[in-house]
Amino acid sequence: MKTFGFAAQSNTTPLAPFEFERRDLRANDVAMEILYCGVCHSDLHQSRNDWGFATYPLVPGHEIVGRVTAVGSDVSRYKVGDAVAVGCMVDSCLECDQCRKGREQLCRKGMTQTYADKDRITCEPTYGGYSKHLVCREEFVLKVPDGLDIAKAAPLLCAGITTYSPLRTWGVEAGNRVGVVGLGGLGHMAVKLAAAMGAEVTVLSRTKDKEADALALGATRLLVSSDPEAMMAAGSSFDLIIDTVPVKHDINPYLPLLDIDATLVLVGQLGLLDEPSTLPLLFGRRRIAASPIGGIAETQEMLDFCAAKGVLPEVEMIRMDEINHAFERMERADVRYRFVIDMATLAGA
Amino acid sequence: MKTFGFAAQSNTTPLAPFEFERRDLRANDVAMEILYCGVCHSDLHQSRNDWGFATYPLVPGHEIVGRVTAVGSDVSRYKVGDAVAVGCMVDSCLECDQCRKGREQLCRKGMTQTYADKDRITCEPTYGGYSKHLVCREEFVLKVPDGLDIAKAAPLLCAGITTYSPLRTWGVEAGNRVGVVGLGGLGHMAVKLAAAMGAEVTVLSRTKDKEADALALGATRLLVSSDPEAMMAAGSSFDLIIDTVPVKHDINPYLPLLDIDATLVLVGQLGLLDEPSTLPLLFGRRRIAASPIGGIAETQEMLDFCAAKGVLPEVEMIRMDEINHAFERMERADVRYRFVIDMATLAGA
Repeated sequence: MKTFGFAAQSNTTPLAPFEFERRDLRANDVAMEILYCGVCHSDLHQSRNDWGFATYPLVPGHEIVGRVTAVGSDVSRYKVGDAVAVGCMVDSCLECDQCRKGREQLCRKGMTQTYADKDRITCEPTYGGYSKHLVCREEFVLKVPDGLDIAKAAPLLCAGITTYSPLRTWGVEAGNRVGVVGLGGLGHMAVKLAAAMGAEVTVLSRTKDKEADALALGATRLLVSSDPEAMMAAGSSFDLIIDTVPVKHDINPYLPLLDIDATLVLVGQLGLLDEPSTLPLLFGRRRIAASPIGGIAETQEMLDFCAAKGVLPEVEMIRMDEINHAFERMERADVRYRFVIDMATLAGA
Repeated sequence: MKTFGFAAQSNTTPLAPFEFERRDLRANDVAMEILYCGVCHSDLHQSRNDWGFATYPLVPGHEIVGRVTAVGSDVSRYKVGDAVAVGCMVDSCLECDQCRKGREQLCRKGMTQTYADKDRITCEPTYGGYSKHLVCREEFVLKVPDGLDIAKAAPLLCAGITTYSPLRTWGVEAGNRVGVVGLGGLGHMAVKLAAAMGAEVTVLSRTKDKEADALALGATRLLVSSDPEAMMAAGSSFDLIIDTVPVKHDINPYLPLLDIDATLVLVGQLGLLDEPSTLPLLFGRRRIAASPIGGIAETQEMLDFCAAKGVLPEVEMIRMDEINHAFERMERADVRYRFVIDMATLAGA
């Protein structure tokens, strides 16, 4: 099928209109018209090849919500007209121990990313959600539950699951004390999700500027990380810290805040961290970890949880042709808290 | 009681004979004649104040084995003549959640270190095991089980428990794949203990030089960390890595060796680590942690385990007046694998 979207042609070119082919439906494929696509910080990183594994032309977008337009002959879970979603992966081996445990994101053979990757069968490039249509294997399509606002749900597919998964993996429950570092796309979801799980949520920020926002999102308080006394008083007081900062940074201020045996989970940054000290780790048996998205069943669980609890991202809707400006604003952290592209604004070729 | 030992008078002076007082017995105290004391790398660090929290005069030594010479009126567990041991701590609050869980090493109020610390009641300095006698609260005295060679057991009190505790905390069991980085005092105990638990143990070393030693200690193999192909082939193949390196180093070569959700535990180094990359952490949900010694009940369990399994450190016995030379050799890693001071060689004043 011919379709169209916006692509980067190289790591130095802005996104621009691009026509391309989506594959013909395989028996287990679902075709959808994309209605909304969230704008993730990694879309910007990948467009510029900041991580060194981009491929061009690059159609970003892995926070995808749409409606089914056709299904392959073996598809049983979806039918034309269903509200569906696709996140950061569109395939995996489905045979390894991790896939069998529902952890497709940790597939031993490597999951197939929604864009800048290769189809497992034909090796054709994968193209993301900044486009009009998508074809995706049934097992990697999510159901958008009734009651979830389809115009706002898109960011759940990356920002949502990336913060939901560590909250679940590290067993957060009602009454637990959760810290969130960085109040951007991921951070604001971490606050909302942890609060919806009944946790007592603290936002860690360099200044008090975001305090009102933090409280409005569901946090109990904002802890100013540049205030040595406040930080000292908060020693050993968190069961889990989710660090959503997307750039190289120093985690040493946060480690002593962890309770004994507690973990700081990095979800935003790819690459080297500043030198961490082993002292707070050793003397509190504290841990550092990182976590990528979540599995498909867990992603569905997260969507259902958000529908049941009324959790939605804070979004600013943009037109497709505003994407390069949105990237610039995202770089300045000038977005509260996630851009979503209204795909109705994407004109046909 | 007057006693004597070897002390550093400052961070630049060698250890030399030193006379000092041990406190009179409190009701819950055990007095012992020290028979053997292991020489830990931290004794050297502390003598030179490498970590900034030494106090002088400093009598090092926290791998202590001796015989009870007197007990306080309330002491019920020990009697004169018993073979006993004391490790890295001599007191804690015994009231906080951690102490109540048997994790005195993680005491909320801070455990009292065997030397270079302050007595909780009198604030007098604590002096370690490079000395003839020790007085220690009953709750922090261990029983040396029958069948454990008293002349070799001393290093179990630090090197032993420091590696046993993470093996237990991270649930190592028969068939698990354990990596050990650094084959010194701690490393050789990690190999022996993990092997005694039935794990498949791999020593990671820059060269093949230590292969015969590694195998003799119970390892299945030695993996040469400077061999990129061998390291690549070992990707995701460890359930736990115990890193015993005592100096600032780069853990990035080891992180991809961890299986999904597996942990690298640092037990040897205090201070900054080289910058770690979040990539292997994120893509395998891997973890970094650090761990200090173990609790008292766990230390007793470790001693009993070693007696039952016939696990003993490899020791080189030295005279007390050879300690400064032993420090020099330890700095060059010229010891297989732990010096133990025979306290019979400590002449009276």
